[in-house]
Amino acid sequence: MNADNRIEQLRKLMKEKNIDAYVIPSADAHQSEYPTEHFKSRAWVSGFTGSAGTVAVTMSRAVLFTDGRYFLQAEEQLEGTDVELFKMGESGVPTLEEFLKEQLNEEETLGFDGKLFSNLEVDKIKSALNSKNISLSTEFDLIDEIWTDRPELPSGEIFVHNIEFAGKSISEKLELIRTEMDEKGADYYLLSALDAVAWTLNIRGSDIPYNPVVISYAIIGQKDVRIFIDDAKLNDDTTEYLKNNNIEICGYNSIEKALKSIKIDESIYFDQSKISEWCFNSIPISVKKISGEDIVENLKAIKNEIEIENFKNSQQRDGVAIVKFLYWLDKNIGNIEITEISASDKLEEFRREGDNYVSLSFETISGYKDHAAIVHYSATKDTEYKLENKGMLLLDSGAQYLDGTTDITRTIVLGEITDEEKRDFTLVLKGHIALSKAKFTYGTTGTQLDILARMPLLEDGKNFRHGTGHGIGFLLSVHEGPHRISPVYSKVKLESGMLVTNEPGFYKDGEYGIRTENIMLVREDCENEYGDFMKFETTTLCPIDLRGIEKELLNDGELKWLNDYHSDVYRSLRIHLNKQEQEWLKVQTREL
Amino acid sequence: MNADNRIEQLRKLMKEKNIDAYVIPSADAHQSEYPTEHFKSRAWVSGFTGSAGTVAVTMSRAVLFTDGRYFLQAEEQLEGTDVELFKMGESGVPTLEEFLKEQLNEEETLGFDGKLFSNLEVDKIKSALNSKNISLSTEFDLIDEIWTDRPELPSGEIFVHNIEFAGKSISEKLELIRTEMDEKGADYYLLSALDAVAWTLNIRGSDIPYNPVVISYAIIGQKDVRIFIDDAKLNDDTTEYLKNNNIEICGYNSIEKALKSIKIDESIYFDQSKISEWCFNSIPISVKKISGEDIVENLKAIKNEIEIENFKNSQQRDGVAIVKFLYWLDKNIGNIEITEISASDKLEEFRREGDNYVSLSFETISGYKDHAAIVHYSATKDTEYKLENKGMLLLDSGAQYLDGTTDITRTIVLGEITDEEKRDFTLVLKGHIALSKAKFTYGTTGTQLDILARMPLLEDGKNFRHGTGHGIGFLLSVHEGPHRISPVYSKVKLESGMLVTNEPGFYKDGEYGIRTENIMLVREDCENEYGDFMKFETTTLCPIDLRGIEKELLNDGELKWLNDYHSDVYRSLRIHLNKQEQEWLKVQTREL
Repeated sequence: MNADNRIEQLRKLMKEKNIDAYVIPSADAHQSEYPTEHFKSRAWVSGFTGSAGTVAVTMSRAVLFTDGRYFLQAEEQLEGTDVELFKMGESGVPTLEEFLKEQLNEEETLGFDGKLFSNLEVDKIKSALNSKNISLSTEFDLIDEIWTDRPELPSGEIFVHNIEFAGKSISEKLELIRTEMDEKGADYYLLSALDAVAWTLNIRGSDIPYNPVVISYAIIGQKDVRIFIDDAKLNDDTTEYLKNNNIEICGYNSIEKALKSIKIDESIYFDQSKISEWCFNSIPISVKKISGEDIVENLKAIKNEIEIENFKNSQQRDGVAIVKFLYWLDKNIGNIEITEISASDKLEEFRREGDNYVSLSFETISGYKDHAAIVHYSATKDTEYKLENKGMLLLDSGAQYLDGTTDITRTIVLGEITDEEKRDFTLVLKGHIALSKAKFTYGTTGTQLDILARMPLLEDGKNFRHGTGHGIGFLLSVHEGPHRISPVYSKVKLESGMLVTNEPGFYKDGEYGIRTENIMLVREDCENEYGDFMKFETTTLCPIDLRGIEKELLNDGELKWLNDYHSDVYRSLRIHLNKQEQEWLKVQTREL
Repeated sequence: MNADNRIEQLRKLMKEKNIDAYVIPSADAHQSEYPTEHFKSRAWVSGFTGSAGTVAVTMSRAVLFTDGRYFLQAEEQLEGTDVELFKMGESGVPTLEEFLKEQLNEEETLGFDGKLFSNLEVDKIKSALNSKNISLSTEFDLIDEIWTDRPELPSGEIFVHNIEFAGKSISEKLELIRTEMDEKGADYYLLSALDAVAWTLNIRGSDIPYNPVVISYAIIGQKDVRIFIDDAKLNDDTTEYLKNNNIEICGYNSIEKALKSIKIDESIYFDQSKISEWCFNSIPISVKKISGEDIVENLKAIKNEIEIENFKNSQQRDGVAIVKFLYWLDKNIGNIEITEISASDKLEEFRREGDNYVSLSFETISGYKDHAAIVHYSATKDTEYKLENKGMLLLDSGAQYLDGTTDITRTIVLGEITDEEKRDFTLVLKGHIALSKAKFTYGTTGTQLDILARMPLLEDGKNFRHGTGHGIGFLLSVHEGPHRISPVYSKVKLESGMLVTNEPGFYKDGEYGIRTENIMLVREDCENEYGDFMKFETTTLCPIDLRGIEKELLNDGELKWLNDYHSDVYRSLRIHLNKQEQEWLKVQTREL
């Protein structure tokens, strides 16, 4: 059964329910970026497996909206189906709301599963369709009726994230949260985002690959805390841990009843973008609803000093694993068969050997030659390339350790590359360095800094179609907010203690792809009559391939940054390497 | 009578009218940045004469809010009075709304003249005070009752701005405007901004020094156009011009009646930030009000090709005047007495000699040594310095020509300067060059580009407390929107045909000030698979003082920009100079 058949089945159900357009997003019931298999309805119905995309189906058309990271992949995966690709952000391409407004006639009905859309998204859809008198049907998960072999919800056990790693206890975190709740005048605070529940209660799970979260909700009251979680996920130890911390354990599905029983004179706080329309609709109309920025999202983005110390240890350990891999690759390329997948498997092996290893933090992107131009490329046994003594391998990978989450991209020069490739490699590096070196005053947002990472490419008439940086969870999601570095407007200030990636790239369709990514820590710099100055501290430790660099394109400041960085890398990693690896690293980090 | 006496008189009137706090802003009844003398109530009451500031008076406190450009000036001018200075944007300093909320008790009354606040500003004040049940009294201009020698409204005649300069006729402009009105479903469009009325009708006036606008309103209907203007400002020619263009001439004060007589089934469009609360309140409640971005502000920001050609001619002419002045200054400094004011008078003389000269475009800032650290310094006979053969003179000036408006800042090195001054001069220049050279994709805003002009200073732990660039009118206000280059968020994209200044600076309180300002034209660059690229074209033609530059701090790209720019300046200006000036300019624009 292909996408077209599935969409035909969906249309039959739509007709039965009098739904004229039906939308299937990527998210799960908790608005997660990476949903568990059970929630991959959009991938199942369309065949497009990228992490971001939304399908909209009307009686005559089926379209997929996705962003620049996935244009190539979506084109390939939709080939041979009637599903049209809408390239988000390209000129002339409508947004989902614009498309729906155009396609739906007066008084028709738009349907979607209210669990899969945030309350904010639904508000936007409503206001876009306002003038057309469109009804919404949010109670049906139509995909569930046609997806006969749909995977069950996962039921892995949770574990406690010890305070030696987390740095703050449940009670310390609750105190911070309740102070904010007080300010907002809230009796309750609804947590629906999975990483927010896990962070608050210092628990981790295994429900979603690469994301050690647990599918659950929490309601924090001024005196009590309830977690809504499937019983099967608890054992004696974790049950006792929660009880000792006065956390009331409730069934996952009882969240609906809990929300419905909030009293008229009580108030509840939530972030409209973090709770589903279904959750929102479960709260009685008469209850005072206070919406604003998610309290936990803001708190957890600013890492505490224990987390920072732990995080730096995990970065160093990750750097050792990658250097061991790079050494292995350098010695074996051309001698034994190495493919995109076997290379990433080998890297995973080295990571597994490190202390505190939990899992990878996302599916490794191992793209050789033109595969690297597919920004979120996923190698398969059918399509993968064998690596040769030429061209470039883009490797974007990361790991979850008990003491931190890593995310690093290196573009590895396997042999001869063209002058053009070298120029582009160097332009990407110049952007990376410009952002790394940036100083800025307190109050600056990622929107203001983004251009620094792009300017060397822009001056050459080039650009990359993704953001420059994202926040990183702590043994949580590899992407987390509220801050980011992106041309898209964000009002979130960069605060001391935030982590953010620095990952400019350049992608030449059908030829090659380059990306250089480190994680940076936001820190205070000096304070004087001109302002309170901030800076970035690069925490990722791994050489940047000198074979890709056209030295003449680097100015003195850029060269100094590169040499200083490489000297840091060598000093920090060498004692964890064997003699041969040490010598190899010394050459890789030599002064340019 | 000083500020304290005036404020006491104001408080008496406030008591009579049961007003607990009264606010006096800088604006006139048209929300102009630079009001005519009649409207300078805030300056009259407080003694602070800067262009931006708001006074709030309660029974116990009087405070002035102003921005970083005016901190020093406000401190000096408020000295010896009870008026407190609130430095906007500094940490811990409340906004006007926050201050009012804090000072006013439940059920008290806030008063101001509804003509002097935009409808948008009043909405913000209302929502800030929402929780406190504060009444608004907007009908009284209390200052008018105590300002006995208040200047009358001006009554200078208007003139027609010929199409050879304006590039587009009234009817062409009305067609563009009405197309937008159609899209918005508006029967009428209210123009209250003075530059918008002048641009639309291709008229100019002399009501406000430096700003050749005329105090008037206009209402554009789908079929008719009315201008509301004092009869005394029209002569036979201009009356005939307006009549020939089917513009109905109405008295200035009849705008109220016109707004009140809009019919229930009609709709009116306006920009909430461009019309006064008083105008808004004059429109019957039952009339459909459609608010959005100001149509004319957006249209006039994008200069047409005839305007651009004219504008470039005016820039060249202005450059000639400044070079003649710089030559004169260089030859005479140390030989004859030259002061801050006599220098700016001399520059004005050279400008007057040029074709199409109308007036200066703003009060020249001529600040020597530490005076230059006062960002919007205004020299007076009492305080001005004599210029000597050392230190730096900051000269920020511009002119109105029939074929364009200019705005340029040069920091002139009059003799010996310190290494620190030289370093800072060069850092400012590096920022200026970075912005000049920037390329960016279509859709980029000034918020994203601002950091480029600051980064060299920021890396040195320095910054400047003003925006980096503003739009420029065409024989209109020297500051115009909607775009700007500033850390403050703006969603306005930079469009081909927009003009914007590039004016980073550095100010060391009590020591020196540096600013380098050119006007740039936004232009399309290349278009390829990576995006639609845009660039800036520098249009100001005047040497940048090589004596201020520490060459070692410039990289190759920066040096190339500087040398190319100076070569352009020399080539463009030399034929308009005499032999001695030519030779002098050749030295000033020599390759570094």
